Formats: sequence, structure tokens, C-alpha cells
Amino acid sequence: MKFVIAPDSFKGSLSAAAAAAAIAQGIWRCVRDADMVKLPIADGGEGTLDSLLAAAGGQRVTISVSGPLGAHVSASYGLLERGSVAVIEMAEASGLCLLTEEQRNPALTTTYGTGELIRHALDSGCRRFLLTVGGSATNDGGAGMLQALGMRLLDQAGGTISPGGGNLTGIAAIDDSSWDPRIAESSFVIATDVQNPLIGEDGASRIFSPQKGASPEMVEQLEQGMTVWADLIEAKTGIRLHDRPGAGAAGGLCGAYLAFFPASIRRGIDIVLEYARFGEHLAGADLVITGEGRIDHQTASGKAPMGVAQLAKQHGVPVIAIAGSVGEGIDSLYAEGIHSVHSIVNSPMTLQEAIERAPILLERTAEQVIRTFLAGRRGSE
Amino acid sequence: MKFVIAPDSFKGSLSAAAAAAAIAQGIWRCVRDADMVKLPIADGGEGTLDSLLAAAGGQRVTISVSGPLGAHVSASYGLLERGSVAVIEMAEASGLCLLTEEQRNPALTTTYGTGELIRHALDSGCRRFLLTVGGSATNDGGAGMLQALGMRLLDQAGGTISPGGGNLTGIAAIDDSSWDPRIAESSFVIATDVQNPLIGEDGASRIFSPQKGASPEMVEQLEQGMTVWADLIEAKTGIRLHDRPGAGAAGGLCGAYLAFFPASIRRGIDIVLEYARFGEHLAGADLVITGEGRIDHQTASGKAPMGVAQLAKQHGVPVIAIAGSVGEGIDSLYAEGIHSVHSIVNSPMTLQEAIERAPILLERTAEQVIRTFLAGRRGSE
Repeated sequence: MKFVIAPDSFKGSLSAAAAAAAIAQGIWRCVRDADMVKLPIADGGEGTLDSLLAAAGGQRVTISVSGPLGAHVSASYGLLERGSVAVIEMAEASGLCLLTEEQRNPALTTTYGTGELIRHALDSGCRRFLLTVGGSATNDGGAGMLQALGMRLLDQAGGTISPGGGNLTGIAAIDDSSWDPRIAESSFVIATDVQNPLIGEDGASRIFSPQKGASPEMVEQLEQGMTVWADLIEAKTGIRLHDRPGAGAAGGLCGAYLAFFPASIRRGIDIVLEYARFGEHLAGADLVITGEGRIDHQTASGKAPMGVAQLAKQHGVPVIAIAGSVGEGIDSLYAEGIHSVHSIVNSPMTLQEAIERAPILLERTAEQVIRTFLAGRRGSE
Repeated sequence: MKFVIAPDSFKGSLSAAAAAAAIAQGIWRCVRDADMVKLPIADGGEGTLDSLLAAAGGQRVTISVSGPLGAHVSASYGLLERGSVAVIEMAEASGLCLLTEEQRNPALTTTYGTGELIRHALDSGCRRFLLTVGGSATNDGGAGMLQALGMRLLDQAGGTISPGGGNLTGIAAIDDSSWDPRIAESSFVIATDVQNPLIGEDGASRIFSPQKGASPEMVEQLEQGMTVWADLIEAKTGIRLHDRPGAGAAGGLCGAYLAFFPASIRRGIDIVLEYARFGEHLAGADLVITGEGRIDHQTASGKAPMGVAQLAKQHGVPVIAIAGSVGEGIDSLYAEGIHSVHSIVNSPMTLQEAIERAPILLERTAEQVIRTFLAGRRGSE
């Protein structure tokens, strides 16, 4: 009996790889000779680099770059397909996970380090890029990233502007005379499900900057700066990011990619499934087990388990999902190929307890789910 | 597709009948044309009367009897099989559920009302009895019950002793000259899984009286009285209850049944399953769903889901159990016919929340369990 084990991470408790291991252990407890394929996945957010390296194989390159507040940090990017494809995870260099709660300040944080990762990969000869944009600490519209790759952003006096979303208001001109020419020779795929535009009520500043540490006053300052930045980009490139869906991802980093890179957006999970050769692994499979920290009505809008289910459905393989918590509105998932959804929580407990005990709870739930699945199979023999 | 729905109660939140209804609703959500048989069950404890009436059909007779502290209470017994079998649930007349926390006092509580129920059924012509003994508030060795049926219990001065476990010490003689002669003409089956003897370290007083309100000092007084009582019974009948397994059930009520009635003990769940014609309902069934408030290693020792599983296994029908909480050590259940165990808890929550939301949580879990079962069935078609 063949099982494809394709969970996303259980945020705050289990990486996707650890979740896959726990599910495999649970299956092993009731089907000793199971054929199991472990494909930890991700939807383009944090952990996508790890998932791609685990699922597709590849090389991790770790270098020192500017962190979100300038101080150097150790950051990795991935090389897939014998070094021809680079995976740049912005959170590695410019992520919220690199800051303490107190350090969060999108007026100051920069994507400069993300630009340095790209530059290093270009130097290595890479010309194909996967760009993940989840988990950002920034709201600088990608300005820092552009600067790291040679773009000069000048104030009224002709001086270089300082890093941070709070300084976008001061930009008066974009000078691309030193812009890295290798960018135009490369191809970039941005992995994101975010549909937010660069500015406005649904824009990067108003929607995402509060969780990155912005006060209500700072949100409005950031929105002003981002508007200046969007106007300048439009004047420079003719590309209007103001209301472009996706441009607001990662504090506007995605907008900068769209304006200055030969880049297109794809749904994160689809990229991951493609590199993991998920479709090939489905051949002959009896069941797919997927999962995520929480499964609810939002899962239907492009989360990893949904992508897994849609592809599995095309191949006629049933999918069962396991979640840390199961919310409301999951009925819409059934049409997409998810047959059922089970929670790892097996008695009343606190969130903290569920997080701490997640590996064993997931293992046991996977075991019971498989037992129930097999009871159905047995019943029809 | 045929489902047999046979849950016990979820203590503190759902009666067995309410649990069966919730499970049926969950099944209906995914199999609209399901053939469902609802058989709420019980293991001989409180709720057994309700389960038998629901599963076997019958008549409920409600009368006024002496409550645990003497004040009259309204209590029911059941008549099955066209009135030929009476189900006497001791908790109806002498149960802990009839007292407030402050009123609990096994030195004072009596089984007199239970005897009155039996007498009423005898008056109605019944000669076959099922006696359930769970949920008692008493530790009187069944003395009150015997008195209600004509047994005279006398002190040294020849006076009648007063009700309550605290007065057993004063009994000097048992006078059966007025004992109801219809008892000897009847047959009694006691439904219990309790193995405790009448006295000693594992006896009624030391094991059960604390939860009925006894202080450590009172426990020792009760134990002394129960020893006097056991010695007197042995002298009177030749039956030694001191270390007889089961005699300690219901504060020794079961011992009195064994000594003075033509009575035998059977496992509660087996009696319930027999009256519910569970075996007949299994014919053609695809799946049995059982359940209980908690399922853990103790479930293997005679709890209701275990009895369900053992019988279903004989008929080759798989069983899935759903519990409020799933504890450790459930591996031993698989050999008994339980294929898998799922919890109704679908996210971190308090016990109180799980209890309050039990109906909808059970319904949803049943739905997901059936979906997983069907995914297995589908996979093998």
C-alpha cells in the first residue's frame, strides 16, 4: 500500500519535514510494509526553501548579508537542478523571524540583504530564480533590494536615501545607470498567493505593516512613502503598481520585482509541487495525507493542502488532511479533493500543550486515520 | 450503506441517546441515504434504564419512594417485554445524583427506596428483574433495601435499627420472618463490572465511600459497620461476602442481593446488548460507531464500547470509537475489534468548552470519520 505524505509545516510547532516524519511513524504503526513517499511542502511562505531542498534535492548556500536592521546575519539560499535554479527566500535575510518583538519597526527595516542573496546567486552563474516572499519584516517597497543590485535611489539633493520604509517619502529619483545587467538576462518566478496591491486600503502598509511593528501613525507615514514610491516607479517604468494584485506582498518587495525584473507570479504551492515532482509520486498511490497547523475556510484559497488536493484529485487519489486545529467552513474543501479533515488534538488541552505534544499527537492521529481508512477498505473487500 | 450507532453516554455532557443522535446527524451529512440503527447503550451504570427503554422499548413507571436521606423522591423503573421484566436502577431512588455536594453522607444514606421500587414491581406481577447498581450515594450494605422488603434488622435491645451505613455497627440480629416471599419466586440479574468485595482494602467502604462524602474517619467507621454486617450475613445465610468479588458494588447493595436474592451477576454491557438485540441489528451492517466520554486503557476492562466491539467482531463488522478524550494505552483495544479511536476535540479547548460543544463536536467528528472510512472504501473499488 502506497502513501504520499505531503504536509505543510504546523506553524509554531512542527516543520513540514518533522510533520511528514510524524505522519510516517503513525502509518508505520499500523502498516508495517507501507510504501511511503515523504514530500514536505510549503505554500511559498517561510519554510519553502527547506521544503524545496527536501523534496527536490539541492544545495544550500549560506552567506553573510545585511539583516533587516542592517546588522549582518547569516542567510541561506538554495540551488536546485545542479545549480541552475536559485531559491531566494526573503525571510532568510529580511524576515520577521530575525527580530525580537521590540526590534520590529518597518520604518527602519530593509530588504537590502535579499538583494545581496540575489547578487551572490547571479555571481554563481544562476540565471533562473524562484523568489519566496513570505515572513517579511519590511515595508520598504523592495527599495533596499534594488539598491543592493545597483539601483541608485536619490533624494532632492542628489544624495542616496537611507534604508527603511520610513525613508521612501524622501526619494526623488531612480537612477538605473548602475543596475545589474544580469537581472534582465535572467528569469524570475515569484511564489505568492498574496493578492494585495502596493497602496490603498488593501495595500502593503495598511494590511501588513501593523504585524511588523507599525503603530497606527506609522502605518499612515508608510502609506505616504509607498505612494511616493509607486508614483516614481510608474514614472520611471510605466508600470503601475498602485493597484496591481500581488505588488503589496512582502511590504512591496514583490512590486519591485514586478517593475524591475523579468518576473511573473505563480501560486507558491504549485511551484513546490512541481519541483517535488508530486504528480509523478502520485502514480500508484492509495492515499495522500496532507496537513497544516490550521485548516478552515481559508484553506480553500490557495493554501498548501488545497494545492495538494487539487493535483491528487486529477490523479484520482483520495486526500485526507490532518490539522492542529480544525475551524469552520471546511465543507468547501470536499469538492477540491479533500475527503476528510482530522485534528491532532485528542482531549481537552491548551494551545501550548498541543504545540509541545504536536509530534506524538500527529503520529497518533495519523495512525487512527489510517486505521479508519483501512476499516473502510476492509469492509468492501 | 448500513450503520449501527451504539454509543454509551459522554458523562457530564451527552446522554447515550443524545450521542447517538449527534453521530447519526454527522453520518447523514455525508451519506444521505444511510440506513442507520440507533442503539444508545450503557454498561450497567447510570443511564442503563434509559438505554434499555430506548433500545428494547418498554414502559417507564414512576413512583414516589424514600430518597437517599429519607425525604421522598420521584423515581422510575422500567418494564420490558410486555411488563414481564423490571429494570431497577438503584440510582433512581438512592443515587448520588439526588444529593447536593453538601448532602453527601454515607453514614446516613439508605437504599430503602431501591427496595420500594422492587416491591412496587413485585406488586405489579413482575418476577424477572434486572438490577443496575451504578451511581449509588450509599454504603449501607443494602440494609435499607432489605428492610423495605420485610427484613427486620434489630439492635441488642430488639429495636429496629435506623437507616444509614453509620448504623450497621449496631445490628445484632437479622429477622427474616416478614421477608417478602415473592423474592424467592423471582429471578434477578445484577448488571455490574465492579469486582470489589464487601470489606477490606478493596472493599466498598475504603474504595467507594470517600467519593460519596465520607471523611477518612468515617471510612473506618463504615468499614467497622460493614464487617459486623458481613459477619451477621454469613452467620445467617452461610454466604461469605467479605471477599466475594462484586459484593462491594453500590456500597454493598450488591452483596445483599447476592446473599438474600436468587441473583447472579452479569457484565452490564452484555445485558444491554442482549436486550437491544444488538446481534440481530449487526446483520448487513457496514460499520458500527461506538463511543464514550473517555477511551483509554481502562476501556478494555468491560466498558460499553468494548462489549460492542467484541460482539461486532464476532459478526465481522468493523467498529470505530469516538470519545470526548482519548487516553493512553488504547493499543489493546484493536484485538477486541475496535479499528480506530477518534476524539471529538478538534482544536485546543478547555474541558468546559468540550462539554458545552459536545453535540456539534461529536456530529462533526462522526462526519469526518465516515468520510475517511468511505475514502478507504472508494480506494478499493
